Amino acid sequence: MNILVLGAGQLARMMALAGAPLNLIVSAYDVRSGDIIHPLTQQPLGQGLDTAIAGADIITAEFEHIPANILHQCEQSGKLRPSAQAILTGGDRQIEKALLMQAGVANAPYRVVHTQADLEKAVDALGAPLVLKSTLDGYDGKGQWRYRDGDDLSALWAELDAFLAAPEQRDGQAIIAEAMIPFEREVSLIGVRGANGEFASYSLTQNHHHNGVLTLSVARPDEQDLQLQAAEMVKKIADTLNYVGVLAVEFFDVDGRLLVNEIAPRVHNSGHWTQQGSACCQFENHLRAVSGLPLGATRLVQPAAMINILGQGSVPLATYRDAHVHWYNKTPLPGRKVGHINVTATSNAELATTLASLASYLPGDTFHGLQSAALAITMTLTTSSISSSSSGSRSSRVNTSRGQTL
Amino acid sequence: MNILVLGAGQLARMMALAGAPLNLIVSAYDVRSGDIIHPLTQQPLGQGLDTAIAGADIITAEFEHIPANILHQCEQSGKLRPSAQAILTGGDRQIEKALLMQAGVANAPYRVVHTQADLEKAVDALGAPLVLKSTLDGYDGKGQWRYRDGDDLSALWAELDAFLAAPEQRDGQAIIAEAMIPFEREVSLIGVRGANGEFASYSLTQNHHHNGVLTLSVARPDEQDLQLQAAEMVKKIADTLNYVGVLAVEFFDVDGRLLVNEIAPRVHNSGHWTQQGSACCQFENHLRAVSGLPLGATRLVQPAAMINILGQGSVPLATYRDAHVHWYNKTPLPGRKVGHINVTATSNAELATTLASLASYLPGDTFHGLQSAALAITMTLTTSSISSSSSGSRSSRVNTSRGQTL
Repeated sequence: MNILVLGAGQLARMMALAGAPLNLIVSAYDVRSGDIIHPLTQQPLGQGLDTAIAGADIITAEFEHIPANILHQCEQSGKLRPSAQAILTGGDRQIEKALLMQAGVANAPYRVVHTQADLEKAVDALGAPLVLKSTLDGYDGKGQWRYRDGDDLSALWAELDAFLAAPEQRDGQAIIAEAMIPFEREVSLIGVRGANGEFASYSLTQNHHHNGVLTLSVARPDEQDLQLQAAEMVKKIADTLNYVGVLAVEFFDVDGRLLVNEIAPRVHNSGHWTQQGSACCQFENHLRAVSGLPLGATRLVQPAAMINILGQGSVPLATYRDAHVHWYNKTPLPGRKVGHINVTATSNAELATTLASLASYLPGDTFHGLQSAALAITMTLTTSSISSSSSGSRSSRVNTSRGQTL
Repeated sequence: MNILVLGAGQLARMMALAGAPLNLIVSAYDVRSGDIIHPLTQQPLGQGLDTAIAGADIITAEFEHIPANILHQCEQSGKLRPSAQAILTGGDRQIEKALLMQAGVANAPYRVVHTQADLEKAVDALGAPLVLKSTLDGYDGKGQWRYRDGDDLSALWAELDAFLAAPEQRDGQAIIAEAMIPFEREVSLIGVRGANGEFASYSLTQNHHHNGVLTLSVARPDEQDLQLQAAEMVKKIADTLNYVGVLAVEFFDVDGRLLVNEIAPRVHNSGHWTQQGSACCQFENHLRAVSGLPLGATRLVQPAAMINILGQGSVPLATYRDAHVHWYNKTPLPGRKVGHINVTATSNAELATTLASLASYLPGDTFHGLQSAALAITMTLTTSSISSSSSGSRSSRVNTSRGQTL
């Protein structure tokens, strides 16, 4: 079976590797170049998008920022899984927020802001502090602001207005004003839904970021209360979208109660540990779901975590037998995600020890934030007990936007 | 790093898939066509063997029947792992038997037979019954005989002599006469040895054959006594050869005592379950060893078994979430190995249940012998206890040769 993936990065690559044993042959559409390429070699296959669509049995996406005309062309072929609507939801906070309300899952209260009057009404309704985010991607790193009690609302509006009116701006851009949520940590859940509606989810994952980029994800099978909350919420979202494939949802943990932060209609960086930690990884299960194959088992087979590799071409791993490197065949550039390390163990306590050891061993000037993240997770992993939804390390954070987690 | 694999079948393919995350790029030498091909697409890469050897960082093999001149050319490049000697050992029973004696590991008593006088001496020394096997591969399915008390020795020699004198015969062919061993079952152990001499081994595996072809392999982590015996024997063999890479050894279990049946200097069909069942599979660990990377953990992460798929292009697996199909991208021909199914579970008891269910579900006219194999293993898996070296199903067999297990 031929699978065309919209997007030609590491997620398409890992789908290709996961699909090969199932005879699912993956090619990838590079949105920037317009080429159809082989996701492993990155070599163009000498065909255009129309031919690739015609030759594919199934079309799916590795990211949500696909031009709408291409999404609709794929949808019209009848081969696109998940739907264009689902993919667009992941790329537009306004659609995403409306979906969350429709699905009835908890998320931060919000208002859409097009005008200064909208902004004033948002402050009246939501109070302060507020986080303001562009509904579509920003440009040049712009696209996020804060409002605190006593800030000059007119000056803020002038900034927002300039952003919205900029010539580089995309059509349909707007601002979402959200009540700022004091949360303790961020967790995510990877779910998968088959075309027949069957649903399964992986272990809850605790995520640590540094400068807006994911540093460390750790499977938390010990967090049963949160696991149940999260799985129910992801299933509601997936059912509402009549979703097919892997769906990732990021949450704020607010004192044991989860609020959805954002959804990603695809395989997700915080689920890479499933390659070593689960019976059937997120990449294989996404392909199984979109191809109409039965879902694979999502259960944890061993404690697992993932460390991102940013901007370097080699990592010394000495004799860490439980460190599994996954390179993306990308040229290392500063800050660029070029691979990840899955770390496994026979117990959570051993995982904590290995993570602490690795965090000291790996160079701190390229694995930014890993030591503090490992320290935080180590404390909670070693002190946690089954069915506890609380964590030992509670440093409050707020729902400021991070760089997108691919 | 570029790895050239001698041989271009499913083992090279699975090495390519396991190597990609480590940036180990695998190409394969098709011994029959002389082409260098991509192991996934099977497409020729447009280069000859000399160029491929020059461009490789490391050369290894997926099977042992490589022409000696090519092995020596590779060895002279300084890139071949394991050594030509080790690879040749796997393809010549005479060298193999001498190695086993040198390493001091138990195996069936034997004599080399070149003449009728040798044959008579073998009967005098070893008694009856005997199994007689060609030292190199046979041709046209020939290459194995039996001698029982009272058989006509001159008539047998006439057969052997005709075999040895046939014009199709390869140079260096001879006959090994072995005492026939009444064994209860066949087990195997996959070991891996790094260039620095570090050694690790996977769980002991119990194997079931039908008409000389492997049907079912099941990891037996519950057989601690045999595990220790087997690991010690494999390590002795590997150390004797100064071996680098994965080494598979098949044993006869004779009432709880292991005798080596044969060795395979490579990844092995009876180790395919490690893809789902172990922390780091045999394909990745072979590449790690030959590339000088630290070995990955070999521990079992979940109970696992493997069922071979012979001669059919599709397998209905309904909703078996713990069935992982691995296709080899081969045209299905009657009896040809075209894929395998790895079956996993959360306990040995659950594995037994799933295997019994699958054996009833899968079509018996293509999965020959699976039902009886599953029945036998089911009985031992559910009744076994840790540290027991005995099995519940003891139907005596003898060391007649099977088709080679790739």
